[in-house]
Amino acid sequence: MKQAIYEKRGPVPHEVIDAVEKVTPELQSGEALVEVLAAPINPSDVLMLTGEYGMLPDLPAVGGSEGVGRIAAVASDVKLPVGQTVLLPVGIGTWASHVVAAAKKLIPLPNEADAQQLSMISVNPPTASLMLSEFVDLKPGDWVIQNVANSGVGSYVTQLAKIRGLKTVNIVRRESAVDTVQANGGDVVLVDGDDLARRVKEATGGAEIRLGIDAVGGEATDRIASCLAMQGTVVTYGSMSGEPSVVSPRFTIFKDITLKGFWLALWFKNASKEQQMAVYGELTKLIATGQLKTKIQKVYDVAEIKDAVKAATEGGRDGKILIGKTE
Amino acid sequence: MKQAIYEKRGPVPHEVIDAVEKVTPELQSGEALVEVLAAPINPSDVLMLTGEYGMLPDLPAVGGSEGVGRIAAVASDVKLPVGQTVLLPVGIGTWASHVVAAAKKLIPLPNEADAQQLSMISVNPPTASLMLSEFVDLKPGDWVIQNVANSGVGSYVTQLAKIRGLKTVNIVRRESAVDTVQANGGDVVLVDGDDLARRVKEATGGAEIRLGIDAVGGEATDRIASCLAMQGTVVTYGSMSGEPSVVSPRFTIFKDITLKGFWLALWFKNASKEQQMAVYGELTKLIATGQLKTKIQKVYDVAEIKDAVKAATEGGRDGKILIGKTE
Repeated sequence: MKQAIYEKRGPVPHEVIDAVEKVTPELQSGEALVEVLAAPINPSDVLMLTGEYGMLPDLPAVGGSEGVGRIAAVASDVKLPVGQTVLLPVGIGTWASHVVAAAKKLIPLPNEADAQQLSMISVNPPTASLMLSEFVDLKPGDWVIQNVANSGVGSYVTQLAKIRGLKTVNIVRRESAVDTVQANGGDVVLVDGDDLARRVKEATGGAEIRLGIDAVGGEATDRIASCLAMQGTVVTYGSMSGEPSVVSPRFTIFKDITLKGFWLALWFKNASKEQQMAVYGELTKLIATGQLKTKIQKVYDVAEIKDAVKAATEGGRDGKILIGKTE
Repeated sequence: MKQAIYEKRGPVPHEVIDAVEKVTPELQSGEALVEVLAAPINPSDVLMLTGEYGMLPDLPAVGGSEGVGRIAAVASDVKLPVGQTVLLPVGIGTWASHVVAAAKKLIPLPNEADAQQLSMISVNPPTASLMLSEFVDLKPGDWVIQNVANSGVGSYVTQLAKIRGLKTVNIVRRESAVDTVQANGGDVVLVDGDDLARRVKEATGGAEIRLGIDAVGGEATDRIASCLAMQGTVVTYGSMSGEPSVVSPRFTIFKDITLKGFWLALWFKNASKEQQMAVYGELTKLIATGQLKTKIQKVYDVAEIKDAVKAATEGGRDGKILIGKTE
């Protein structure tokens, strides 16, 4: 079996990781060998390679934090059938041809469902879903604004907002991303820039926007804040620019705008089992039925991990990069 | 009578304001003529001269938003006695030798109380009081951190925290301000700098600080955030640096730190009469009995308004600048 392993962290992520051939270990009691069908490269995975993430595994580590696989073999005391499609436990190191996992941590999925779409369920869809529900009490017809609308999370935000009857202002950083976001259901799609507030006002007919979602940081956070109504909330969940969030006192002090952060790992720590089940239950249904999906740019074999990570960290993509079965 | 009037706004505040001799108007029904005893120059007053405040009066306007005076004359239907000390209504234009006001808006104060200290009651003490109470549920023994601890609001924060049994980390921007803040009751006083979080941890024995108060903006906001415990709150109420607040995703996302703003004018809009009375009742008692006070650097006659505003906008002060009776 092959694993994408990193033994150190560094500023150029594809330089620190490489595919390594390993002997498939003998299964211990309760374990299953799972062939990985699909595992995405998320921005958080890349930040683990550079060391900028809020939680870092001990080294050496296998990259990748989520994915979907198919049972290839089980220990004699495991009841899951060989061939069963399963969701891999979060954080297990999914950029690999095979994973050995405790069978009780594997969640069975419909064998006929889209494994690639389901492989991305654990991180981005709940992030999008919870940012839309946990900060501002929104009702059908209310507006939400977000930047990086063409990212993985961004595309889920647009779709989930539509499913919930919300309207979205979607900000992108380049003209070439506008069509994709419009096709994804974005009500308003605009390219970021200094006069954003004026253009948003014009495009929405002066709508009162109380929730802003930011994944860029720097002055882009302030531009999202500039589009919000009094007492609005900016939720930041990423920093694509690599810069800290900037927010003017014109918004925090004079408009009572709040800046908050969202990190799924922290939400998990504090959420009850029931809350977690409710979120994943809804998302599994939506993804399995094809109502919620995100674009995939390319699937790489784990042997091509360097190229895959490089592609994932380059701008101008039009979809997610996955590790997995390429045929 | 003399009034400090500005007819336009501009970046150099003392250039746009000047003392002008006016004919004392005849009192109308219900009015009183009040001789101004003391009126402070607050940062918010200066921002009204430059146009950077969240709420700007029509021009021409008289500067100054709070103060204490003594009744000099009343209309025949007004019952307040001549010679009575009164609190002037907020926003009336208090940088003047005399003010004409509706008698029912004047709040009588003890004639023997310290007029200079009471002249500063309307803006800074409630700002300090409410920032300590409205954002984080603090209990005696809990820690608070603030920057610009040697400012007007800063000195009230330190004193009110002590009165409430809270401990304070006080950040100043220059070594020469340390003694004043220590004498004011600050538990820990440190000069701002890059390794602030480490020094705060050392000085407090690793105390968990859940409330940070910022009036500097720029990277100083981030340094306050860096000193907070998980799920702490930074409240910003000013931007002495002239820069927007900067907060790293390391704090918003990975430590669930919230950035909020505080503006007294907005609190007033939403607070009930009872809430307002409760806040001012406590503060009047504390100031009238000398338990709460702030340093005064110098009192200027309204005729010297240009020098006074210049002094108020210069760094390195050791107390407030007042307009008022100088003898």
